[in-house]
Amino acid sequence: MFTAVLTEGPISRVALARRLDLSSAAVTKAARPLIEMGYLEELAATERTGPGAGRPASPLAIRADREFFVGVKITRDELIGVVCDLRAEVRASAHRRLAATDVDHVLTELGELVDDLLDGPGDYRSRTRRLGVAISGDVDHSTAQVRYSPFLRWRDVPLGERAGKITGLTTSVENDVKALTTAEQWFGEGVGVDSFALVTVGAGIGCGLIVNGRLVSGSHGVAGEIGHIGFDVDGPECHCGSRGCVEAVAGADAIVRQAREGTGRPELTFEDAVTLARSGDAAVGAVFARAGTAIGAGIAAVANLVGPARIVVSGEGLSAYDLFEPHIRASFQRQAFGAAADCPLSIRALPFEQWARGAATVSIKDLVGS
Amino acid sequence: MFTAVLTEGPISRVALARRLDLSSAAVTKAARPLIEMGYLEELAATERTGPGAGRPASPLAIRADREFFVGVKITRDELIGVVCDLRAEVRASAHRRLAATDVDHVLTELGELVDDLLDGPGDYRSRTRRLGVAISGDVDHSTAQVRYSPFLRWRDVPLGERAGKITGLTTSVENDVKALTTAEQWFGEGVGVDSFALVTVGAGIGCGLIVNGRLVSGSHGVAGEIGHIGFDVDGPECHCGSRGCVEAVAGADAIVRQAREGTGRPELTFEDAVTLARSGDAAVGAVFARAGTAIGAGIAAVANLVGPARIVVSGEGLSAYDLFEPHIRASFQRQAFGAAADCPLSIRALPFEQWARGAATVSIKDLVGS
Repeated sequence: MFTAVLTEGPISRVALARRLDLSSAAVTKAARPLIEMGYLEELAATERTGPGAGRPASPLAIRADREFFVGVKITRDELIGVVCDLRAEVRASAHRRLAATDVDHVLTELGELVDDLLDGPGDYRSRTRRLGVAISGDVDHSTAQVRYSPFLRWRDVPLGERAGKITGLTTSVENDVKALTTAEQWFGEGVGVDSFALVTVGAGIGCGLIVNGRLVSGSHGVAGEIGHIGFDVDGPECHCGSRGCVEAVAGADAIVRQAREGTGRPELTFEDAVTLARSGDAAVGAVFARAGTAIGAGIAAVANLVGPARIVVSGEGLSAYDLFEPHIRASFQRQAFGAAADCPLSIRALPFEQWARGAATVSIKDLVGS
Repeated sequence: MFTAVLTEGPISRVALARRLDLSSAAVTKAARPLIEMGYLEELAATERTGPGAGRPASPLAIRADREFFVGVKITRDELIGVVCDLRAEVRASAHRRLAATDVDHVLTELGELVDDLLDGPGDYRSRTRRLGVAISGDVDHSTAQVRYSPFLRWRDVPLGERAGKITGLTTSVENDVKALTTAEQWFGEGVGVDSFALVTVGAGIGCGLIVNGRLVSGSHGVAGEIGHIGFDVDGPECHCGSRGCVEAVAGADAIVRQAREGTGRPELTFEDAVTLARSGDAAVGAVFARAGTAIGAGIAAVANLVGPARIVVSGEGLSAYDLFEPHIRASFQRQAFGAAADCPLSIRALPFEQWARGAATVSIKDLVGS
């Protein structure tokens, strides 16, 4: 019930009872302790007019500032942190550069980042008990362990336990794409739909999937690997051992490599490539066009196989989304089968703060589920 | 509870209570009317020995011959029918050639096929109340309507209602790949796993998906379209409007077309192509190799995205599965990402009777669910 008010409220007891298939009395009974603990409140009664209106309704709403949550995204060279309220609205944010990627250094910096966030303006410390950490790679959310993170070269790190000791906060750990997907499911475009997909474009191409209302985890620990769907059987080698994967054409490293080949300039960076493409360089423009085409084909594979209600395409790589977007859309339309092409695509840039918010959302979900 | 005994029985009341998280008393109570109606029976008590063994257990089992079910698969040129018992074991089968594909003709033939099956040896008529029909295309199972079947050129046919009038049986209608998937979920390799995929190879390449224990239907009416995942962005045109789809390389028509091109023999049939490839013709062998590679890449996309516990590859096209199998496996291993390659593949031929059995399974499921 708390989840329904959190994601869909404010909502009247009557609407809530209908939504959850419960009696009004059951809703009132379940709401009482949550109101006493300060998580829910009754809004002022709204007047109803006309015959049969009955007594006025007092919608239930979340008291968003009852508790705060810290979310941190770990990247190879930076920590990005936010403080969110119960509705996952960002109240404060901060960054820290990382001088190294070993676990001890990252944890020390994480502790200082959390202190910066909680002891700054806003008096968050007294109402914050939980921390969520998001990291790319293979994460066991149930034990808060990082099994393997290729970017950081971490293996079997008990991150939740160690971060909990340093910060004094109950710590949840989740794969970064799954964390973002949870944020969209609870507070974004996934609210009220039974299935959706979130595709992230950046160093890697990832995908979080909700099917039949639940996150897809994969029986063998692998799911959402849209980056390793084949796009061009004769295409460039991929780090996974195959050829022509979506990521081998559209990942950030692949774009830089192809732009260097196309221009003959071996020192070119991703930012240089974006600048050249925007200024009309045909060779580099073709690299982004092909990358967008590969991403669109990967997204169409998701639509053809699982048919999500909607798909969000985002990620740090989409700072250049003006270069990708028309090619993603055209390729998706071409490759989506029949009515699968009706699936709405939202294509938008996503600042790193949103990844940190995703991490905070995981800690909110773990509170509500606990 | 009936479903658990049906798919996992014989099973003791104690094991059943544990499996369903119910009390033994609740299981006993739920079982009583099913025993009275003849659907369940208690097997002879098995002796238990040793200390703490308690009283002997009498496992509950399905009385498979309590009721029979007719299943019919409709193809372009033939009807294939079976009689199954409650456990979906095939007791009888029959075929009828179709002289035309219009609805009236097919229904007339369907009525005669059902009569043949029920009035033959076995006295099935008196214990048969239900019929399941499987057909390729877009089917609304809830209303038993065929919305669109491209092979038969049917649109908006109330097949369940019309077949029910002709046969006197309560009729369920389902898409043929979904029907086969249901058969595997209830009585095959899908028993006891939370997710699996069934891939069918033939005129088209299809896929049924179970994720989080439920059939994936697609929010926009499309799901499991593995045949329209991209394989080769520069490949041959596909009837869907795109290029290089799995089906454009590996569908039966595509194989015939490529074999004709490779040999310069425009009259070649699919069977001719199989014979040539088996006798060592290099050009036609390469066509089957490439088709197997495309199918393997499509299956790897399923494993990478949703991570099923296991994948069954089957279908009438796999009468030539000796020609496909090594290429499917090699391509799958190459394209499956990391632990996704651990997903077991079962590759096997599938006679049309099994499609008809799938149709019967849908009618069993509808009985149990009703």
